[in-house]
Amino acid sequence: MAEEKPYLTGRTYLFRLPKGKDLLEELIDFCHDNQVKCGIVHVTGMLSNATIGYYNQSAKKFEKSIFEEELELVHCSGNISIQDNRPIVHASVVIADNEHNTVGGQLLPGTKIYVCEAYIQELVGEPKVRRSDKVTKLALWN
Amino acid sequence: MAEEKPYLTGRTYLFRLPKGKDLLEELIDFCHDNQVKCGIVHVTGMLSNATIGYYNQSAKKFEKSIFEEELELVHCSGNISIQDNRPIVHASVVIADNEHNTVGGQLLPGTKIYVCEAYIQELVGEPKVRRSDKVTKLALWN
Amino acid sequence: MAEEKPYLTGRTYLFRLPKGKDLLEELIDFCHDNQVKCGIVHVTGMLSNATIGYYNQSAKKFEKSIFEEELELVHCSGNISIQDNRPIVHASVVIADNEHNTVGGQLLPGTKIYVCEAYIQELVGEPKVRRSDKVTKLALWN
Repeated sequence: MAEEKPYLTGRTYLFRLPKGKDLLEELIDFCHDNQVKCGIVHVTGMLSNATIGYYNQSAKKFEKSIFEEELELVHCSGNISIQDNRPIVHASVVIADNEHNTVGGQLLPGTKIYVCEAYIQELVGEPKVRRSDKVTKLALWN
Repeated sequence: MAEEKPYLTGRTYLFRLPKGKDLLEELIDFCHDNQVKCGIVHVTGMLSNATIGYYNQSAKKFEKSIFEEELELVHCSGNISIQDNRPIVHASVVIADNEHNTVGGQLLPGTKIYVCEAYIQELVGEPKVRRSDKVTKLALWN
Repeated sequence: MAEEKPYLTGRTYLFRLPKGKDLLEELIDFCHDNQVKCGIVHVTGMLSNATIGYYNQSAKKFEKSIFEEELELVHCSGNISIQDNRPIVHASVVIADNEHNTVGGQLLPGTKIYVCEAYIQELVGEPKVRRSDKVTKLALWN
């Protein structure tokens, strides 16, 4: 494995996201507005609905599913890096319905905040940059 | 979105929680005893049983379920803030049974530790304060 | 509860793990190569297959299951400590299949990386040491 240069920890945020807005867009906008270019993010809370993705490795494309119901956001974590010269958030989620049953996938636009609390830890150093990978067709770090 | 003031990272703890005790109460007591007023928490391990909650957004009330069985605590993360002048922990969990099947929800009292390892990162700055919200009837940060 | 001495935060890493390799072995090798003896780890991404474990508390032994399919690694977090004089990673995972259905357990060898991004936060202080526990037969911190 190539040698990895450690980051320094930068700014740390803990805050509530606005009700009714799109979760992924809010996280990305926050990073853009505060110029957080590299870091990690955790969110916990409740959603009004959710859109999650599955990457089909054989077909090399994303499939998505929409859940139009009240949901607990029992897990959401991911990272912040740069794509097309602006901060982007990649995060995975596990959501639970009213019988506690869970599904999981990648957080996609189309996920409405009911009550969500976010933690963002900025990392200071050379930001990771996502570029299109020929093999997987995903936007990956070098 | 209102401008958020960043926190500084304070004390960092990594420790085992005592077997047979209540997970949520132990986390809250730890924060109280060490005066951790703001931060994040992660726990991983195994449980003797679990009580988890679901917030019914339409009825605006909590529903809870009890799982009386050996469980893997495959995910537990949340935050620490102030409610009624003392530290409170809000955390989500995903638990798995002996066939790896998962359910998820909010961590509630009535969840007994078998073996649990906790990570707590204190955040230094103005602690978040939970107050009753008229619309949702939840205790939310301003 | 015994008084816990806080750690200082050390080096912070954010990096992509090599495709086709074993996830748990790569994490352990990274910690060994970089002499990260104590800390926390988070991973998100996709897997080519997975092997996860369940600790049977009554029988006091591990059971494992193998999932031979493309999977989303929707959650993976754990900690780094010392066992037999070298760094060891204990982590829990939640994985989702192509219909978003989830299972969870402990991350075991036999879990192949498709695309995985890791975050490691080193903690500086007295590293935790895992030793065999008579009651549970697990390797636990004192």
